[in-house]
Amino acid sequence: MYSVNVRDHFMIAHSFRGAVFGPAQRLHGATYIVDATFSRRELDADGVVVDIGRAAVVLKEELERLNFRNLDDVPAFAGRNTTTEFLARELFGRLAARLSAGDLGEGARGLQRLCVTLHESHVAWARYEAELG
Amino acid sequence: MYSVNVRDHFMIAHSFRGAVFGPAQRLHGATYIVDATFSRRELDADGVVVDIGRAAVVLKEELERLNFRNLDDVPAFAGRNTTTEFLARELFGRLAARLSAGDLGEGARGLQRLCVTLHESHVAWARYEAELG
Amino acid sequence: MYSVNVRDHFMIAHSFRGAVFGPAQRLHGATYIVDATFSRRELDADGVVVDIGRAAVVLKEELERLNFRNLDDVPAFAGRNTTTEFLARELFGRLAARLSAGDLGEGARGLQRLCVTLHESHVAWARYEAELG
Amino acid sequence: MYSVNVRDHFMIAHSFRGAVFGPAQRLHGATYIVDATFSRRELDADGVVVDIGRAAVVLKEELERLNFRNLDDVPAFAGRNTTTEFLARELFGRLAARLSAGDLGEGARGLQRLCVTLHESHVAWARYEAELG
Amino acid sequence: MYSVNVRDHFMIAHSFRGAVFGPAQRLHGATYIVDATFSRRELDADGVVVDIGRAAVVLKEELERLNFRNLDDVPAFAGRNTTTEFLARELFGRLAARLSAGDLGEGARGLQRLCVTLHESHVAWARYEAELG
Amino acid sequence: MYSVNVRDHFMIAHSFRGAVFGPAQRLHGATYIVDATFSRRELDADGVVVDIGRAAVVLKEELERLNFRNLDDVPAFAGRNTTTEFLARELFGRLAARLSAGDLGEGARGLQRLCVTLHESHVAWARYEAELG
Repeated sequence: MYSVNVRDHFMIAHSFRGAVFGPAQRLHGATYIVDATFSRRELDADGVVVDIGRAAVVLKEELERLNFRNLDDVPAFAGRNTTTEFLARELFGRLAARLSAGDLGEGARGLQRLCVTLHESHVAWARYEAELG
Repeated sequence: MYSVNVRDHFMIAHSFRGAVFGPAQRLHGATYIVDATFSRRELDADGVVVDIGRAAVVLKEELERLNFRNLDDVPAFAGRNTTTEFLARELFGRLAARLSAGDLGEGARGLQRLCVTLHESHVAWARYEAELG
Repeated sequence: MYSVNVRDHFMIAHSFRGAVFGPAQRLHGATYIVDATFSRRELDADGVVVDIGRAAVVLKEELERLNFRNLDDVPAFAGRNTTTEFLARELFGRLAARLSAGDLGEGARGLQRLCVTLHESHVAWARYEAELG
Repeated sequence: MYSVNVRDHFMIAHSFRGAVFGPAQRLHGATYIVDATFSRRELDADGVVVDIGRAAVVLKEELERLNFRNLDDVPAFAGRNTTTEFLARELFGRLAARLSAGDLGEGARGLQRLCVTLHESHVAWARYEAELG
Repeated sequence: MYSVNVRDHFMIAHSFRGAVFGPAQRLHGATYIVDATFSRRELDADGVVVDIGRAAVVLKEELERLNFRNLDDVPAFAGRNTTTEFLARELFGRLAARLSAGDLGEGARGLQRLCVTLHESHVAWARYEAELG
Repeated sequence: MYSVNVRDHFMIAHSFRGAVFGPAQRLHGATYIVDATFSRRELDADGVVVDIGRAAVVLKEELERLNFRNLDDVPAFAGRNTTTEFLARELFGRLAARLSAGDLGEGARGLQRLCVTLHESHVAWARYEAELG
């Protein structure tokens, strides 16, 4: 299996509901350093996993939609706790949709697996990974 | 698959037996930076992989049992070389036991996979990962 | 010159006023990974720069006062942009006060320099450093 | 599954052919920080995944064959784009051959999986991983 | 003293002349991860060290002039060994010129110190730092 | 000021005397990742701060003298607490002696400053830096 990873980041405010979250129930925020890892069994016609330049642009575009926002005010997240694992899954879905739409090129439709990791500090991160349909 | 990772560290002395270990047969030591990665297919009732605060506390508790010790004197390790891979497996077992005991909460019983990585320097690490029973 | 550094982090929400800040004028947030570096010309009576355990505790105490908060609501910051450089200076002041109060031990009164660095992402950080006393 | 990782680096020049590569079609270069990860289900007779000292030596030997070279002039790569993913696959093959040849010791023949990751910057890396044997 | 740092990277080919450089006399290359650190004694009228967005753009512009190039073919470097320390000094000069030209804003003319660090691998870096005139 | 840094590591056992050290009074150990930073105002005749290859070799030689040892048994350290700051100072002295002896080349005698940093974990480091005589 071949993989290629691109990294970028975004900075948001949010709060959580539920006693399990303790002081994180207060409005606070986070920098998320995001790793998007694209995988496939064989290289595409250009001899790459994915056009890494396009991958970086698409990742940045998706992060810009959330960057410098209070996630408590984002309609798509109404009633949800925007935990790091939830956001990893959400970004997985958004990047998978961009792949399906051909925004990373026709070759990228052959990708077989996607993994999205969000580092929230130097001691904690969350990830969502799955096969691409 | 969703994953959440917490990081901490411990500092120990030990020595190895066997010519393959060369100068590491002498009493020496290491700082191990430990990543404990918890994985599951679906989020729990709180919408998380695991209560990350509890996970960090339990990891620290397990590391404290070894921290600032000479592993050559720890009865549980008698007759064993406490290599990095051995210690990764050992910590896997201790954390899995804590999960089974409910120490990370009832929801954590639904975890499906655990991965323990010990970084022994900026150029070497070892890992043990397995499904949880 | 001898130095000792301890690292910890905190997570906050805030917004900035002023066109220069662009989209950061919106309510957003950040994880700040904080390095507190203590320096002195000669070691203290215990042969250390500072009791590193106490230093870590005092750093955590000061960060806890800000952790999981919306800095826009903190009275001490009213009317101020809580930029990374501003927060580095603020934490410098708070740690220096703790040193003066003897909270890091009597030996720590002999420290000559303090440097506080806040990493806001994998590509940006800010710092404030000055002589003590 | 147990794993052990060793890290080293090499520095090369190369150029790519194909419009998809944009300015990377010009002669340029890269530092590749290489992680070689060896995995097996059970430890060997010495209680390790692999003799980490030997693994580091063999990795360095393979990297030295490419280090400080213009890959456009390496006969083995004639007509190929030496992308990061291609080089990860190439190093996988070279390390697997060394394993088969017994250069990491007889015990290392029992390794089941190998993963080679090349970090080309602080924001991008590529990887090739596969079962051995 | 306040400081703000921005990080980016560029990838080049080059060769060195002189026996001291050993195999690096061959055409090879490097990824340089660049930290540009701007310092001043007091914050500017906007309450910042420098407009970090502008600083990132100007750094990228200067790196783009060298990115994906063979430095042996760059007229400005004719007859010079483009070592890491040389390149750190060169980028210092280029960034200082941009500061003088007002490209980081009028406030940035008050900067007092600039430090440019080039990381060439996980084990080596070079730096040039000086007061700004 | 120009600087060049090389990084390596060593792994030791030791114990501390004094109540201030708490559980670190027990025999334990550490991995120290060492950064040796050499500085000078002008480049040498070869256009470098120091021959980085020689610097890496000399650093490794000095670390090998301590690597895989119990520092409590090293005569040179009898009666001393081998804290991280103490070891940084000690390595500073050993590297400065090698510079004086000409082991990094004649050009290296022109170095003006040396800084030795020992990272003992992902959250703590100590440093000693001074002008060279």
